[in-house]
Amino acid sequence: MFELDQRLQQDTCWLADLPLCRVLLMNDARYPWLILVPRVAGVSEVFELDEAQQRQLWDESRLLAQAMARVFAADKMNIATLGNVVRQLHMHLVARLEGDASWPAPVWGRGVAVPYSEEEQDGMRRQMLEALQASGLQVVSV
Amino acid sequence: MFELDQRLQQDTCWLADLPLCRVLLMNDARYPWLILVPRVAGVSEVFELDEAQQRQLWDESRLLAQAMARVFAADKMNIATLGNVVRQLHMHLVARLEGDASWPAPVWGRGVAVPYSEEEQDGMRRQMLEALQASGLQVVSV
Repeated sequence: MFELDQRLQQDTCWLADLPLCRVLLMNDARYPWLILVPRVAGVSEVFELDEAQQRQLWDESRLLAQAMARVFAADKMNIATLGNVVRQLHMHLVARLEGDASWPAPVWGRGVAVPYSEEEQDGMRRQMLEALQASGLQVVSV
Repeated sequence: MFELDQRLQQDTCWLADLPLCRVLLMNDARYPWLILVPRVAGVSEVFELDEAQQRQLWDESRLLAQAMARVFAADKMNIATLGNVVRQLHMHLVARLEGDASWPAPVWGRGVAVPYSEEEQDGMRRQMLEALQASGLQVVSV
C-alpha cells in the first residue's frame, strides 16, 4: 500500500492528486517548487514503474512544468528525479528565476529552506492550482 | 540547424546518436555520467519539443538509465534536466554509488571534474556502449 515517505511529509504540504502522482508543495518560499510522488508502493527508480506508469509520470511532469513556467514566468524549469536521500520515487519541478536564492546552481543542499507564512502559502497554493488547471491534466482530488 | 553548445562540447566526448538525442560521455571519472542532447535547434525546455519528441526524449532517457543502473550496479540513478547555465536542452543521466565523490548530494557544482586518462575513457566508453546495447534503443550511429 502506498504511504508517503516521512521526510517528504515533513517538508511539504499536499496540493492535489493526479491520476498517478500525489502533488506536494515544497515548504520553501525561496522557489516555486512541486514534488510529484507516484502513488505506487515500494518504487525508487522510474524504471521500476510499469510502462504505462512511466509514460504517465512523464506526462504529469512535463505538462505541469510547462504550466508552472507560464504561471511563474520562469527563466528555466528544473525537472529532476534524484532520490539519493529519500528513496521513495519522486520528481522535482522547480521554477527558477535568474537571481533566485541559488541561481544558477541547483536548489538541493543550498542554504536552509524558508518556510511559508500562512498567507504566503495560501497565495502559492492558489498559483499552483492555477498551474494545475492550465496543465490540462485530470485532477483526481484537490 | 542543430549545433552542440560549446560548453557541452568542451566537457564531454561523443558516444553515439539515438533517434532523437546525441549521447555524450561526461569527461569526469568521478561518476558514470551521460548527457542526452536532442538534435533539435533552439530548444531549451522539454516542452518546447513537439509531443512525439518529448515522448522520445523520455524513452531514450529512462531506457538508457535503466541499462546504466544494471551495467554499473548503481545504488541510485539521477535523471535531471536543469540548464540554468547551459541553455541548450540536455538531460543528465548519472549512475550514483553510495560513497561516490558527492554522495548523497547531487553531482552539480561539487568539486572539480577529474578527466579520464585515455585508457580509463576507453574502458568507460565500452561500458556505456554495452549499456546502449542493453537498453534496446535503436542506435543511429556510433
